[in-house]
Amino acid sequence: MRLQGLVQLRRYATTIAATLRHTHKHTHTNTMVRTLASSASPLPDFTQITDKVQRGNYAQLNDKDVVHFEQLLGKNHVLTEDLDAYNICFQKRIRGNSKLVLKPGSTDEVAAILRHCNERRLAVVPQGGNTGLVGGSVPICDEIVLSLQRLNKVLSVDEVTGIAIVEAGCILENFDQRARDVGLTVPLDLGAKASCHIGGNVSTNAGGVRVVRYGNLHGSVLGVEAVLASGQVLDLMSNFKKDNTGYHMKHLFIGSEGTLGVVTKLSMLCPHASKSVNVAFIGLNSFDDVLKTFVSAKRNLGEILSSCELIDHLAFDNALDHYKFLKSPITGYPFYMLIETSGSNATHDEEKINQFISDGMERGEIIDGTVTGDPGKVQEIWKIREMVPLALIEKSFCFKYDISLPLRDFYGIVDVLRERCGPLATIVCGYGHLGDSNLHLNVSCEHFNEDIYKRVEPFVYEYTSQLKGSISAEHGIGFLKKNYLHYSKNPIAIDWMRDMKKMFDPNAILNPYKMLN
Amino acid sequence: MRLQGLVQLRRYATTIAATLRHTHKHTHTNTMVRTLASSASPLPDFTQITDKVQRGNYAQLNDKDVVHFEQLLGKNHVLTEDLDAYNICFQKRIRGNSKLVLKPGSTDEVAAILRHCNERRLAVVPQGGNTGLVGGSVPICDEIVLSLQRLNKVLSVDEVTGIAIVEAGCILENFDQRARDVGLTVPLDLGAKASCHIGGNVSTNAGGVRVVRYGNLHGSVLGVEAVLASGQVLDLMSNFKKDNTGYHMKHLFIGSEGTLGVVTKLSMLCPHASKSVNVAFIGLNSFDDVLKTFVSAKRNLGEILSSCELIDHLAFDNALDHYKFLKSPITGYPFYMLIETSGSNATHDEEKINQFISDGMERGEIIDGTVTGDPGKVQEIWKIREMVPLALIEKSFCFKYDISLPLRDFYGIVDVLRERCGPLATIVCGYGHLGDSNLHLNVSCEHFNEDIYKRVEPFVYEYTSQLKGSISAEHGIGFLKKNYLHYSKNPIAIDWMRDMKKMFDPNAILNPYKMLN
Repeated sequence: MRLQGLVQLRRYATTIAATLRHTHKHTHTNTMVRTLASSASPLPDFTQITDKVQRGNYAQLNDKDVVHFEQLLGKNHVLTEDLDAYNICFQKRIRGNSKLVLKPGSTDEVAAILRHCNERRLAVVPQGGNTGLVGGSVPICDEIVLSLQRLNKVLSVDEVTGIAIVEAGCILENFDQRARDVGLTVPLDLGAKASCHIGGNVSTNAGGVRVVRYGNLHGSVLGVEAVLASGQVLDLMSNFKKDNTGYHMKHLFIGSEGTLGVVTKLSMLCPHASKSVNVAFIGLNSFDDVLKTFVSAKRNLGEILSSCELIDHLAFDNALDHYKFLKSPITGYPFYMLIETSGSNATHDEEKINQFISDGMERGEIIDGTVTGDPGKVQEIWKIREMVPLALIEKSFCFKYDISLPLRDFYGIVDVLRERCGPLATIVCGYGHLGDSNLHLNVSCEHFNEDIYKRVEPFVYEYTSQLKGSISAEHGIGFLKKNYLHYSKNPIAIDWMRDMKKMFDPNAILNPYKMLN
Repeated sequence: MRLQGLVQLRRYATTIAATLRHTHKHTHTNTMVRTLASSASPLPDFTQITDKVQRGNYAQLNDKDVVHFEQLLGKNHVLTEDLDAYNICFQKRIRGNSKLVLKPGSTDEVAAILRHCNERRLAVVPQGGNTGLVGGSVPICDEIVLSLQRLNKVLSVDEVTGIAIVEAGCILENFDQRARDVGLTVPLDLGAKASCHIGGNVSTNAGGVRVVRYGNLHGSVLGVEAVLASGQVLDLMSNFKKDNTGYHMKHLFIGSEGTLGVVTKLSMLCPHASKSVNVAFIGLNSFDDVLKTFVSAKRNLGEILSSCELIDHLAFDNALDHYKFLKSPITGYPFYMLIETSGSNATHDEEKINQFISDGMERGEIIDGTVTGDPGKVQEIWKIREMVPLALIEKSFCFKYDISLPLRDFYGIVDVLRERCGPLATIVCGYGHLGDSNLHLNVSCEHFNEDIYKRVEPFVYEYTSQLKGSISAEHGIGFLKKNYLHYSKNPIAIDWMRDMKKMFDPNAILNPYKMLN
């Protein structure tokens, strides 16, 4: 019985691999990310107008400023035309009206830009790969865009200690490749890896699919260099895992979304790349079985568990419907889990994952699925998970929520919301990082719909707050969630945030209209 | 050849186990820690006098204050006599002259105490288990001691998510026991575990012997409750791994040594306790072989490596000489390494560790040693490592340094210092957390010796600074290192630390004479 189950699982692996090899050879999630950002769908209206944003008391950009920046950076690195890609967010929900994009090539240039902007009271939005989901990386009114994309070098990677030093504008995937060249890996992985910048990841404390294994960036980032609003360079770099000399101020720049300073450089602890990676993609009949399977994965897989993702059937079906190149070995289940292991010994890892699958099948929790250790097949299975969020925004408007909830209440909110929205919504679904108690809750409709909006917000935040959850597990606050911050932060903490902001950026030139209302 | 080597190693394991069983049954490191603190050796002089400390412009404690605190806490929790244990640091190097120890039983009581002290301008030193090594937890002049020892409850442990909520005054070992009751473990382990408080650990960002596996407390601590100097309670608690709502201010209280606020409660992510633990204790001929063995451990042991400690022969011999109950299976090597693995499958783990040992012996890097998975034997081997620092301070004065250095330069400073001190020092030795690039450098002499002091300081800090190392890897700054902070922090960063201190504690009542000079 047990072995039959395993044989069945392996067979599916072969099936999906064969199918994908023929249909999906040159498609890549990250190419998809880029394509979406530059596709021909209609531009959104200016957010300042739609959201009635009162422009802050900032100076107006003038020709003298532009000349100053051209002299500072060279004309090639000062853009005044074709700025849509910098003004519009990845989801095409937020649109700013910046007239100037600056591309400094060094920390000193970032410092000189901010010094000028601070003296002139010009507002600035720092921008990495512009893949954020809360409108944190685009202007809201006419802020100058400070793009970090030229600060893109990996400065060093130490294969013995695992410590890498990298400039903020380095694309995550490129950084990871450099680490892999010496047998290491960046402990952060997320769908936007081919576009997002490591500096943006750090500035937003990005999460992703490996947090269950490697923890968050507060643990992995060893040092930060940040330029403050005044143009002062705050060097909090460290090349060591342990440094207990003074206040640990670098953490203020991890997750503050560019409102306290602009991260220009960082050091990161990179673990060894695993020699063996296995993925199980399994179907389950109930959320109760999902929870039991998670507990079993922690018990059986222990130190090699590296991802534990959940997809419900609506999110799953929608992805397979939109992207015909995706094929799944299993269909027809209410829930799907993607469980990944990474370890140093293929034989040991396979034994552990087989034991985990056998246990689950014996108890009737795991019904069917795939297990594979073939690198190509592993990647193909990951594509199913990676395409889920993209499928939801490609042809429809999508209200996206990213919340932490107690595990026992993890999925209940999806059902509740489905009932609240009724036929107004096309899809109400949930997926995400079950291993981190992090649900991505999505409500899709053809276009932005005020009626749905009112049914969903602030309901989702109130619901989350009542369960003492987090209203933003990994996406941050940005522009879209700043009015809801109080659902997860108490007034005293918010007051201290304001004091902190005043201390670091007294003229409030850095990323205004974000984080704090 | 390979197998012979392994057989030899196993044989030694049996030998040491048999010996230790008979000589060492009831001895426990942590009992030793406690004994030392209460032993009858002579008291040090008052630090205010020896170090010519100018008392800050604080109010003098008066009878009205004492009555106020007695009404607030009850007379039993207000101590005015027999305060040596609170006034003198663990190493008996720093001695304050506090006339009052307060033992609040709740966060509200801590808040009420600080409110009164802030209004009255009375200086306060928060104190946990008083096991720190830089004089951070004792008064320097006559500060009121705020002991957290009554806030000692583990409030909850969630065995599914691994998240525990605990009061600051809980002893680390007690917290770990509660976690182990449900199959989890606290990701922090250090020699003082039977005395130190988890709140003190967090306030000092304590490191210890598991950082190589679980990372530092900035990654493990999910939330903090801290009482500020004003008496305001700053609730930054979170029950989730992911919470990106606003500035991550909790990190300001991790490692700021009670100078910005008093940590009263925290939540922590606890990993599953490993089913299988193995320890290898090996002898090596050169530091070059030590480095090669570390690289091999990372490669062969991968995700199950949970400690990688180094002891040089002087530290080792001194420990075995002082504590006759310690027996080692090997002697006569220049260097010893203690390598621990923790995993979920004993068979897999044993295979990995055997492979690691075989590889090392084949290449001639590992000469001899012990491998054991027997829990009692594992503990006995750990005792050798744990007694090393205690042996150095028991009968002599010891200058202790705790530095991060690049691995290639990790041990060189020990030789350099030995030469600088010559026969003035009885022992100049090095040991510590090689896996984290963290060296504990010790210079022993019979009594405090001004001549040695001048040869060693600031030389050690200058040397470390030139290698861009950290002058305090895990012990913190406290009183003893505050004049050396600039060797690891630049002036701009130190200025920002001062601004931060002014913001949180404008009257500077919290832990004065520490961290910043």
